[in-house]
Amino acid sequence: MRRNCFIGQSGGPTVAINASLAGIISKCQEEDYDHIYGMINGIKGLLENHYVDLNEIFTDDHKIRQLKESPAMYLGSCRYKLPVSEEAPDIYQTLFDKFAKLEITDFYYIGGNDSMDTVAKLSTYGKMINSPVRFVGIPKTIDNDLMGTDHTPGFGSAAKYVASSMLEVYYDSAIYKLNAVTIVEIMGRNAGWLTASSALARENGAPVPDLIYLPEVPFDKDQFLADIHEKFKEKSSIIIAVSEGIKDEEGHYLDQDSKYTKRDAFGHVLHSGTGKVLESLVYNEFHCKVRSIELNVLQRCAMHIASKTDIDEAYEIGTYAVERALKGESGIMIVVHRLSNSPYKMECATLDVNQVANLEHKIPVDWISESHNDITPALHDYLYPLIQGEITIHYNSGIPQYIDIAHLRNKMIK
Amino acid sequence: MRRNCFIGQSGGPTVAINASLAGIISKCQEEDYDHIYGMINGIKGLLENHYVDLNEIFTDDHKIRQLKESPAMYLGSCRYKLPVSEEAPDIYQTLFDKFAKLEITDFYYIGGNDSMDTVAKLSTYGKMINSPVRFVGIPKTIDNDLMGTDHTPGFGSAAKYVASSMLEVYYDSAIYKLNAVTIVEIMGRNAGWLTASSALARENGAPVPDLIYLPEVPFDKDQFLADIHEKFKEKSSIIIAVSEGIKDEEGHYLDQDSKYTKRDAFGHVLHSGTGKVLESLVYNEFHCKVRSIELNVLQRCAMHIASKTDIDEAYEIGTYAVERALKGESGIMIVVHRLSNSPYKMECATLDVNQVANLEHKIPVDWISESHNDITPALHDYLYPLIQGEITIHYNSGIPQYIDIAHLRNKMIK
Repeated sequence: MRRNCFIGQSGGPTVAINASLAGIISKCQEEDYDHIYGMINGIKGLLENHYVDLNEIFTDDHKIRQLKESPAMYLGSCRYKLPVSEEAPDIYQTLFDKFAKLEITDFYYIGGNDSMDTVAKLSTYGKMINSPVRFVGIPKTIDNDLMGTDHTPGFGSAAKYVASSMLEVYYDSAIYKLNAVTIVEIMGRNAGWLTASSALARENGAPVPDLIYLPEVPFDKDQFLADIHEKFKEKSSIIIAVSEGIKDEEGHYLDQDSKYTKRDAFGHVLHSGTGKVLESLVYNEFHCKVRSIELNVLQRCAMHIASKTDIDEAYEIGTYAVERALKGESGIMIVVHRLSNSPYKMECATLDVNQVANLEHKIPVDWISESHNDITPALHDYLYPLIQGEITIHYNSGIPQYIDIAHLRNKMIK
Repeated sequence: MRRNCFIGQSGGPTVAINASLAGIISKCQEEDYDHIYGMINGIKGLLENHYVDLNEIFTDDHKIRQLKESPAMYLGSCRYKLPVSEEAPDIYQTLFDKFAKLEITDFYYIGGNDSMDTVAKLSTYGKMINSPVRFVGIPKTIDNDLMGTDHTPGFGSAAKYVASSMLEVYYDSAIYKLNAVTIVEIMGRNAGWLTASSALARENGAPVPDLIYLPEVPFDKDQFLADIHEKFKEKSSIIIAVSEGIKDEEGHYLDQDSKYTKRDAFGHVLHSGTGKVLESLVYNEFHCKVRSIELNVLQRCAMHIASKTDIDEAYEIGTYAVERALKGESGIMIVVHRLSNSPYKMECATLDVNQVANLEHKIPVDWISESHNDITPALHDYLYPLIQGEITIHYNSGIPQYIDIAHLRNKMIK
């Protein structure tokens, strides 16, 4: 029997999403797929007929390995919400006609919440019309906010970057004994997993961060300043980890709400980062040295300090996805079950993708300290295994040598 | 003959400054120094009698090696401008009495411009009173702005971080084909060396940054927008490297001058980073996706991606400083002479510290492209060797294992 598949990537970048792609390609090649088509810019690109045959590009193990260890998204991404089939039957018709014409047997889609929504809709429609295509979702997101899986590929590496950066910021800030506050703003709009990971900086003795503020509990400005007053009694240099998405008691985001915005010289509203808003708060209260650091996109693209555990799992999840499709499963997302923390053991499993799409996995409140400014040992034990191990990055001319993306860039769509 | 020395660190952190300290300690131990005193918080700490005997701490090669590969400043820092002896004779009296009492033969001071000023003043005073102490300055600064040396320890590692981060930001930003501008703000107030280093991201084929703006030439807002218009003709995603310290034609800093500041809801002036100011400019012109990324302190403390060339040189410069002091030299700064670019060869030398203190080493204008938005091949060839090679960082529990600084932190002064 001939086997042909489509693979796509969608949503925001992580350093593990290419590892899952590498796992899928490698397993498909092992299983003698005739064509392994890569959608350029996800489902949106596919609708415009943009795809490549990955068998022609990945002709040896070295290339697959290089893909596994390259950041972001080799195939490009899209942010596209597939309408329901009742509203846009022509889109579904176009896609399934293409599948039929190319004799597609499997459809692999790597992404976050919106991507799982795409997989759910396509598989539902496919069942309705008795399409032979199997639809499999492969999770990824640095935010770790997908339901039904112990954690998501991409999160462990971002967490390792956050913890290591927090450690290095500590060394940088420890050179004076002046009263100083350093605020590190970390990604995660509604889920604080990544911010919580900054606590892993403590592993080798660095006593930071001093305070951690997560979006799962309301942010209280007065308590925040009281917390700093309290810390200043014991030490002079205070480092604070804060999620970009913290909200006050009334639900106002600190970084977006008009209550906290600034205006430029012309009166235009300027949105400022959460870190900058807190910087002003701290300065106005303490008049001490204060600095805010936004880790920004580096936390999701710094492949050079990726977690081996994360990258290896992302690859394994890719190969597992192909195994399940070969067994005839469809409408599923691959998930990770944790068997034990120490030693860390996990296994792959599957879940009905309809059960996970459009839900958010947040930190359970009982994993946050009662004071709402730190994590509990249970959360530490959950996070710890995910950042373990380093991968060997190949450097050339002093910088990492990642897979070439220039020729695919030219095929990308607007 | 007994030999005792003081070693101090001063100014801002780099990842190479502890390597120079390790080189000095190692060489002093080899030369059987009786006491190797480390000033806590530099000359300011010394004035308050804060110092430790490093022989008691660095009892084996492993510890020295760990110091060599740890970021920031093991001994702590100070920002203290030593007054001239005519104005503060008591300070000099205090210091030289201490030197005499402890039978100090050598004084090693690792730092930037202000630190070299300290070395110059102390050596001048020492000569005047016939003190036997030799004063030797060891350079460091990520800004690479010290005169008289081909480059400064700490710069190469920061440059490697900047180039690698630029590369990773490229992968992150290349996933869509939407019109987008990413602005990366890099340290360097008056000298653009670090910002120029972002061009080394091109080594392995990544075509970024698209535009580079340096503080050595005036920043023209209209030309800047015209440059982006021009780039948008060829590509959709544009990445710009910009020095924090660019100034317009009239000498206004973009990030400090009232002309560019914002006001908060209460009318207070809020200083914004250069990247944020440019972000507004670009958005108002193009109404496209625009993001600014401030590399912030990570560029000076990210030991985990240090340049081996830089760390090894910093260590060598430390050992060389001891050699010169043993030969009786004083009032000198150790400098690096470049013998060739390819293969890269350097040698250590010395310079009268009075010739270098308080001068700034900027990029020669003929090393900047005529269009003022890129570097020339000559500047590339200068930068390239300095980021070569990687050091093996020891990881423990998923994060780097750096030297413990907690017990010295307790000795630090306000």
